[in-house]
Amino acid sequence: MRHFDELLGDLRAKLLQMSGLVELAIRDSVHALEGIEDSNARSVFKREVDINRLELEIDGTVTTLLALEQPVASDLRFITAAAKINNNLERIGDLAVNIAERSQSLLQHPHSGIRTDIPQLAELTESMVKRALEAFVAKDADAARAVLVSDDAIDDLRDSIFNDLIDQMKTNSQSVQACVDLMFAGRSLERIADHATNIAEAVVFMIEGVEVRRHHTQAVSG
Amino acid sequence: MRHFDELLGDLRAKLLQMSGLVELAIRDSVHALEGIEDSNARSVFKREVDINRLELEIDGTVTTLLALEQPVASDLRFITAAAKINNNLERIGDLAVNIAERSQSLLQHPHSGIRTDIPQLAELTESMVKRALEAFVAKDADAARAVLVSDDAIDDLRDSIFNDLIDQMKTNSQSVQACVDLMFAGRSLERIADHATNIAEAVVFMIEGVEVRRHHTQAVSG
Repeated sequence: MRHFDELLGDLRAKLLQMSGLVELAIRDSVHALEGIEDSNARSVFKREVDINRLELEIDGTVTTLLALEQPVASDLRFITAAAKINNNLERIGDLAVNIAERSQSLLQHPHSGIRTDIPQLAELTESMVKRALEAFVAKDADAARAVLVSDDAIDDLRDSIFNDLIDQMKTNSQSVQACVDLMFAGRSLERIADHATNIAEAVVFMIEGVEVRRHHTQAVSG
Repeated sequence: MRHFDELLGDLRAKLLQMSGLVELAIRDSVHALEGIEDSNARSVFKREVDINRLELEIDGTVTTLLALEQPVASDLRFITAAAKINNNLERIGDLAVNIAERSQSLLQHPHSGIRTDIPQLAELTESMVKRALEAFVAKDADAARAVLVSDDAIDDLRDSIFNDLIDQMKTNSQSVQACVDLMFAGRSLERIADHATNIAEAVVFMIEGVEVRRHHTQAVSG
């Protein structure tokens, strides 16, 4: 049985690897959606296999660490935060796959005339994920808290995107399928932002030992 | 500090209470969606507060148990399964709120002529959640595995519901808003079914110590 500290280092290294893969998955899925490049979508599908394998490995390391010996409080907080971040990263990977799938569906439906602020939503979401993971690496609770406030901007943007798409569906029945694809892609981006929030909350908990979860429920829109 | 076994009993009792609340939340949200009774929607919103409070309590008990002493393997599996089930139940509670919100939006948009198989999807989803939680209570790995196979039926039903709604949006622009509400309600039901699958997987892991996660990604539809 390897030493506790070695396994702890392992856990941190795997989590960073997982973070890198997930950031690439988001970037490629957004590129696929915007530039509609099919090769980007396929790289998201391929990368998901690695993300899923890594998630199970990290989960295994967490279980081993918990079984190995009684961790001190700060290590225990790191381990439980790692488990949560791992879970949220895996879900972000799934959502990137959903976005990539919608981008493939869009290839088959005319959508050049559709106006949408999804690129802005994608940019904000990517920045939230990046900042949450940087806060984890830097052990910076203030930086993690700063991620939490982006949530309202996401909600406003989502509402306006959905209303826009619904108007376009009403006036142009040819655009229905593409607008539905864009709505679900927007919803996936919004959910990625929620997971970024969860990660930031786990980082604050890890550093300060206080729960900052806000249990925000998404408002209906559109 | 209370005794480990007492806390373990506490954890089990709270998780059962959480299960009961979440089952009621699903039922009320589906009733709101189908019968469009506003009082059911409001009871979902009220109950969410209790569900969220209970989730934090359960999370706290899990952390205390892990910090208290080094659990034996079977207790550790129970504790980690409880943490996962807790997390999935809380998310189901959020999704029930989403469905209830869609039901309120539907009150404001004409939808009496829309054909949809959402009631069948709701029935299948409710049964999956119920069976996953019964498998947990009965510590029945076979019953938990039986939940996992319902996933394909959910996917088929989701595809046909989405295609149906898209057709109706194309032919009747008056129905767009209501069809969008129904699509998102259907998506929330599908996601509740995913969480039921996660719970069933956690039950198998708790009993047998083997990982049966399948990492199924939702296919695009519609």
